[in-house]
Amino acid sequence: MASEWWCAWRNFCLALIQLHVSAAKSENLRRACGLVREASAKGAKVVALPECFNSPYGTQYFKEYAEKIPGESTQKLSEVAKECSIYLVGGSIPEEEGGKLYNTCAVFGPDGAMLAKHRKVHLFDINVPGKIQFKESETLSPGNSFSMFDTPYCKVGLGICYDIRFAEMAQVYGQKGCQLLIYPGAFNLTTGPAHWELLQRGRGEVIAKAGAEETVLYTDIDLKKLAEIRQQIPILSQKRCDLYGTEMKKLKWKRMRGSQSSLFFPSSEQPQIRTESSTAERFHQNLFLYMSERDT
Amino acid sequence: MASEWWCAWRNFCLALIQLHVSAAKSENLRRACGLVREASAKGAKVVALPECFNSPYGTQYFKEYAEKIPGESTQKLSEVAKECSIYLVGGSIPEEEGGKLYNTCAVFGPDGAMLAKHRKVHLFDINVPGKIQFKESETLSPGNSFSMFDTPYCKVGLGICYDIRFAEMAQVYGQKGCQLLIYPGAFNLTTGPAHWELLQRGRGEVIAKAGAEETVLYTDIDLKKLAEIRQQIPILSQKRCDLYGTEMKKLKWKRMRGSQSSLFFPSSEQPQIRTESSTAERFHQNLFLYMSERDT
Repeated sequence: MASEWWCAWRNFCLALIQLHVSAAKSENLRRACGLVREASAKGAKVVALPECFNSPYGTQYFKEYAEKIPGESTQKLSEVAKECSIYLVGGSIPEEEGGKLYNTCAVFGPDGAMLAKHRKVHLFDINVPGKIQFKESETLSPGNSFSMFDTPYCKVGLGICYDIRFAEMAQVYGQKGCQLLIYPGAFNLTTGPAHWELLQRGRGEVIAKAGAEETVLYTDIDLKKLAEIRQQIPILSQKRCDLYGTEMKKLKWKRMRGSQSSLFFPSSEQPQIRTESSTAERFHQNLFLYMSERDT
Repeated sequence: MASEWWCAWRNFCLALIQLHVSAAKSENLRRACGLVREASAKGAKVVALPECFNSPYGTQYFKEYAEKIPGESTQKLSEVAKECSIYLVGGSIPEEEGGKLYNTCAVFGPDGAMLAKHRKVHLFDINVPGKIQFKESETLSPGNSFSMFDTPYCKVGLGICYDIRFAEMAQVYGQKGCQLLIYPGAFNLTTGPAHWELLQRGRGEVIAKAGAEETVLYTDIDLKKLAEIRQQIPILSQKRCDLYGTEMKKLKWKRMRGSQSSLFFPSSEQPQIRTESSTAERFHQNLFLYMSERDT
């Protein structure tokens, strides 16, 4: 189960499931598990579901659909991962713990054991006047840690949807040795495309892409090609980590002294955001295969 | 001369000069200063020259063309900045100091004073077999600090060419309050396009773009629009800086203990790179206006 990058290169088939999600949780679970079995039957060794796959997406739904982990939904994911003997990135579900709600991704290994549990770190609070307003933080609490798991192929880092917007997270994963980052997503169609498509193109080649239909994307992951490209333009070793930290420390020191208070929008300038989410505008998507010749 | 972001929004005209560079330094200086005057006459308040604008680009040329700073070339830049009463980002020139060579950008204000001196931090050492090999570090030493300067419009951060490839540098500048980043460049046509075009699209809208000819690009910089977009999707305040540092600290601690030595290519795996630079393949470019609704 070693995931050192120099281990024998083993290509593997990754499947990303794009799911039509209804208001019926049991139906969502049934469809999801069915597509996982289909993906496994076609040879996928790592399979990923989309964000919030067992519930409609919207702050008004999270409480009703929330579960403990382990609970009904994750139990089903564990069983199907074991049945198919695959690595299953369980998209995300609304999770309840200690009276708080989280947007949480659970990952299961071929033996059914839970390998990782990632709570969305960056909540989606935005306000594009006349187009879209959304404030996940009205209902959800953010996760406070990053999440990785090992496979025989490579180490995998996890994010959920808007987490992809924050390059620092991917940089940390990259430096921790992750060669594959998976971000289950359920983006809207206003701010989404720049995230699921353009943000990827800016970082490398988009190697698989779904339309708006329920589908399973399959792609062979060639880690050898990734290593070759990273040898040609070896940015990982060219990073000047000796400087980035120093510069940030200087910044912190100045901010403590109050002389750099102009750097951020003062909190009074933050827009007041009202939740207006239409599930009809959304489609559960899971396109965020991140495998790039660049870093982040 | 305050550059606090909340100061009255003042649009300003930025000019980027794309220069045809010959082997005759005096001719390069003459053409560069002529285009600076032209840009100023058309209303530009901030003008930028390209990387290595007084010398052919290639490790074999740097020693011959190198100067002290201040020296002949930067003296001319100072004079033309004062004559035109503009902010002049002087592209870069090969600089010699203490027996070492640097790729250095000097910036001059409307009174002719030098406001910043940036030495290229990330040297361009790459090896794409059969396509391009380049090893700046054979000749050049890297700079070891970041460089900013104030204008009445905004604070500006400086990088040179390949520096743009390293998002951490832009993140530091962003957090230090820079609203405009300028990267004079002289990219090759093999690895260049993904840097000067795609890398920008992945971060925002490309608002001006030159072809391959000697030209001056003009664009009005609208800082109010930038602020509006950043209020709509306020990623600067949504960053989880409480976590990124923590995660990196965990990483360092593990690396000290040697348990994460698998994270980087071992140095023996670094390609042996030979310098093969054809100036005919290059064109001095200066397209790297970075003004984006995203951060880095």
